[in-house]
Amino acid sequence: MPPITYGYLGPEATFTHQALLSLGEIVDPVPFPDVLATIDAVRSGVVDAALVPIENSVEGGVSATLDHLAAAQDLVITGEVTLPVAFVLATRGEVALTAVRAIVTHPMADAQVRGWLSVNLPGVPVTHVGSTAGAAEAVASDETPGRAAVCARIAAETNGLTILADGIADNEQAETRFVVITRTTAPPAPTGADKTTLVLFQHADHSGALLEILDQFASRGINLTRIESRPTKTTLGSYCFSVDAEGHLADARMGEALLGLRRICKEVRYLGSYPRADGVANEVRVGTANADFAEAEAWLAALRGLGA
Amino acid sequence: MPPITYGYLGPEATFTHQALLSLGEIVDPVPFPDVLATIDAVRSGVVDAALVPIENSVEGGVSATLDHLAAAQDLVITGEVTLPVAFVLATRGEVALTAVRAIVTHPMADAQVRGWLSVNLPGVPVTHVGSTAGAAEAVASDETPGRAAVCARIAAETNGLTILADGIADNEQAETRFVVITRTTAPPAPTGADKTTLVLFQHADHSGALLEILDQFASRGINLTRIESRPTKTTLGSYCFSVDAEGHLADARMGEALLGLRRICKEVRYLGSYPRADGVANEVRVGTANADFAEAEAWLAALRGLGA
Amino acid sequence: MPPITYGYLGPEATFTHQALLSLGEIVDPVPFPDVLATIDAVRSGVVDAALVPIENSVEGGVSATLDHLAAAQDLVITGEVTLPVAFVLATRGEVALTAVRAIVTHPMADAQVRGWLSVNLPGVPVTHVGSTAGAAEAVASDETPGRAAVCARIAAETNGLTILADGIADNEQAETRFVVITRTTAPPAPTGADKTTLVLFQHADHSGALLEILDQFASRGINLTRIESRPTKTTLGSYCFSVDAEGHLADARMGEALLGLRRICKEVRYLGSYPRADGVANEVRVGTANADFAEAEAWLAALRGLGA
Amino acid sequence: MPPITYGYLGPEATFTHQALLSLGEIVDPVPFPDVLATIDAVRSGVVDAALVPIENSVEGGVSATLDHLAAAQDLVITGEVTLPVAFVLATRGEVALTAVRAIVTHPMADAQVRGWLSVNLPGVPVTHVGSTAGAAEAVASDETPGRAAVCARIAAETNGLTILADGIADNEQAETRFVVITRTTAPPAPTGADKTTLVLFQHADHSGALLEILDQFASRGINLTRIESRPTKTTLGSYCFSVDAEGHLADARMGEALLGLRRICKEVRYLGSYPRADGVANEVRVGTANADFAEAEAWLAALRGLGA
Repeated sequence: MPPITYGYLGPEATFTHQALLSLGEIVDPVPFPDVLATIDAVRSGVVDAALVPIENSVEGGVSATLDHLAAAQDLVITGEVTLPVAFVLATRGEVALTAVRAIVTHPMADAQVRGWLSVNLPGVPVTHVGSTAGAAEAVASDETPGRAAVCARIAAETNGLTILADGIADNEQAETRFVVITRTTAPPAPTGADKTTLVLFQHADHSGALLEILDQFASRGINLTRIESRPTKTTLGSYCFSVDAEGHLADARMGEALLGLRRICKEVRYLGSYPRADGVANEVRVGTANADFAEAEAWLAALRGLGA
Repeated sequence: MPPITYGYLGPEATFTHQALLSLGEIVDPVPFPDVLATIDAVRSGVVDAALVPIENSVEGGVSATLDHLAAAQDLVITGEVTLPVAFVLATRGEVALTAVRAIVTHPMADAQVRGWLSVNLPGVPVTHVGSTAGAAEAVASDETPGRAAVCARIAAETNGLTILADGIADNEQAETRFVVITRTTAPPAPTGADKTTLVLFQHADHSGALLEILDQFASRGINLTRIESRPTKTTLGSYCFSVDAEGHLADARMGEALLGLRRICKEVRYLGSYPRADGVANEVRVGTANADFAEAEAWLAALRGLGA
Repeated sequence: MPPITYGYLGPEATFTHQALLSLGEIVDPVPFPDVLATIDAVRSGVVDAALVPIENSVEGGVSATLDHLAAAQDLVITGEVTLPVAFVLATRGEVALTAVRAIVTHPMADAQVRGWLSVNLPGVPVTHVGSTAGAAEAVASDETPGRAAVCARIAAETNGLTILADGIADNEQAETRFVVITRTTAPPAPTGADKTTLVLFQHADHSGALLEILDQFASRGINLTRIESRPTKTTLGSYCFSVDAEGHLADARMGEALLGLRRICKEVRYLGSYPRADGVANEVRVGTANADFAEAEAWLAALRGLGA
Repeated sequence: MPPITYGYLGPEATFTHQALLSLGEIVDPVPFPDVLATIDAVRSGVVDAALVPIENSVEGGVSATLDHLAAAQDLVITGEVTLPVAFVLATRGEVALTAVRAIVTHPMADAQVRGWLSVNLPGVPVTHVGSTAGAAEAVASDETPGRAAVCARIAAETNGLTILADGIADNEQAETRFVVITRTTAPPAPTGADKTTLVLFQHADHSGALLEILDQFASRGINLTRIESRPTKTTLGSYCFSVDAEGHLADARMGEALLGLRRICKEVRYLGSYPRADGVANEVRVGTANADFAEAEAWLAALRGLGA
């Protein structure tokens, strides 16, 4: 089997690149300039799959990914991977910290080292670029003295930068979650430790709709591990909900929850079932196992067949 | 086709007899002395069907009927009929009201004329017998002067009694509901104005269980027209619930509610789906019609078939 | 202090009498012929308090008690007591079981020995009288041979009857619960193991109302130990609910639940808070203790006082 | 009274500046470079109040505002204003559209004209700066030919730019909502058309917590006009919820909802009650008016005072 072609949010040496390498599959990585381009490359068949960030424990959902996936009709998530967030401050050649006059980084990275910067480099202006790898590249290619990048170690190394400070993230437990995207296909088989990602659009004129939506999960004993509201891009206050639910499309309880959601929502977008990165087994409450559903179905079929 | 043999709560000339005659079918009515005997006659095949009272707007559920049906594994309800409650006070020959010294009636009838008796015959002792028809019979066959029966007009007439007072029920809108019972068989076809009768046993150690049970109906847009708690005959505070739900076993929303109940209850006894006596069409909320369920099922099947 | 005058559902030697004696207070017991008369004696001041049965583990709620209390505006329950149900079969003088030709008892007692009778005295007619004590008395005063009473041991002994069979109740764990009724007064102080009895009338035209009612308790972590539907005596399908809720009128969570019920129900009748007979401590869920309510109230008051 | 000093998200000629001018009060506007600086200026007393964007109908919540407000213990929202989003494409001097080689704008503006740009300026690189006003300024001060800013009309005019295209937002109904922030103070008096903004932190280990939180509002008939999940900046999947609820801190139903939230949440941050920009009167469901709460409180107080 030839290597799978994998798109990722580039350029080379981004966190996404690092996450992709951690997948441990034989991959042929292809960087793309932004999330939309990465996703489009999957859709058009330029690559077989792609890895993009979807959630960050400090900054929250990655809007571009959430919104492009929500709009996609022909893509699914088939896997996830998480990566601890760890930043370095890196310069072109050896520079004293006090000589740093300008910082270049990605806005999300900026947000995660803000505390460290305000203590160690107060008042130093920060310029935002499209990726932390791009920041490293920009610093490497610019001879102006006193410029520093906030980036992943891999990016500093790739670009031959000197690391002035390591582990500068404000929150040492910060993680980023990435998802593997492919064209629509059957999900990986259930493992008992799965997630299902959905985008749920409520009927506009129905207050209490979110309560009803959540009840579709709760009443079947399904936990949600993530819920994000996203604007539907129409009027203020019109939202859809991006959720990760514990369990697999093939699970009976998930099936019934999906049926219920389909009936009460304006639209339900199924974005895939896949194994959880943390491998934590799904909780199965009393009465919600596949066998419980099968037993109840058999009972109902018998009732309905009475006298027939 | 030969006439259907119908058992009923006798003796002749009871309200149940009167209700049975109102069915308008060609029937061969057979009186039985009590509810249990009537029900057993169906079970054993002595009669094809039976009519028994199940609910009274003043006294509430008829315990004997509710409990014997709840215990039955081989019987179903296939229809219902309601009858206004109307009592007369009747004596053997012409007697002045002031000369009435003793009243004979059924306890449930007593309860429904209590106010009238306390005003018009204060202090006159009341003896309870097994039926209002039996009360009329007892008065007719006893020469002791001053005895009066509280019974249906039909019973007074059948027994040749004189009616001293008519319309003596405290509540003029009082009604009794009767149900047709047969051995287990397919229900009559859905009419869009149906009821389904169930007995629901909760798991003993689960507080909030009733809330969960009710939610199985509410979340599918199913109204309940009757809910009665009945002791399970074990310990104090252990209940089952006898309910009438709007809709038919064949309705998709009822099917899903039954599946949910089956999974959360200790036991679900299905006692039949049948047309409502009042003919009021079942409310069908948005997203709960058979077509909505079918559309959602097709959608889910397509999702599950992806890539297969 | 003079002895308290206690009315009870008589005559002497009933189970209620036996339960009254078990109260262990110095009482002056006064029998009354029926529940209504007993309750009225409290209302009119003829007695200080009364004991009446309210719930039986086999037959369910005692309708007369439930309905008369629901209608009362001036009475409260101040205590409860439970008693195992144990019946004997007793005759006037020594009689062989096979010679028993007629049985006299109260309908509720009949219901609880039905199984035993159908096995041991099949086909023997049963006459219903107003109490099991009355049945014993009737048998004692009637020289017709072959008559037997189903009654409490105390009633057999009081009336000089011979006990043919003991422990004939079908369910050996059967219990009856009795309540102490007084004119409206402050409840006994909270003990941490209390009950509050309420009657809740829903607005007629509001489906899902029971769900809302139950949620008022559930959302404050209050368990219900009893729920009985009772007809409102108007039209079929119009119910009120008689409930026992864990906790005391003085508990903050009960207070807030009562406020919620008052706002959503057509009517809420408070029938008293009193110590549980079984002494089981009320469950207090996280966030529902009096201290939690007090802390939240103080927080809200501070918010509302901001800048004032 | 001297003019109120108002901070805003600058520089001059931003949408926020335009929104501030629309307030119609006599204000002394002071621009700040970012949301944090703007908010800090209020906290430190440098300005009396500030206006910052909080929500955009296309891009969703403004994370910086949501997160800084959620962290604030000493600030409240006292008002809101909404503004239609309308962008122009502007250049230094007259330039043909085909001659545009570089675009400068704010990332959120970029997101809202993405469709227009991909059709009209495909492949032209976009550089992100901190504000649309900054983009206009940057274009005005840079002589490199072919540079264009996507900005508000006010910014183009202030900087002497030429408008190449107007109304280029992809969604013509797009709006941005801004909030007025002050140091903690009493809220404006209730108007009957109010909002209350809260940040709700759930207990980490409690699945179904969001359902419980939403129920605190729903059970008191309170609609939510906005709900946003925000990461708590600890671990993946740990969220708090930023919500706007219909009604005022002084409303009884809001008070009871706040009490309930305080008892079930890890933390409740009250961020102010203020009149709605759209003036739409709050829905008041049956049983949830202040008078209903007062009536219920009086009833409960009477019950609790019984016999005292």
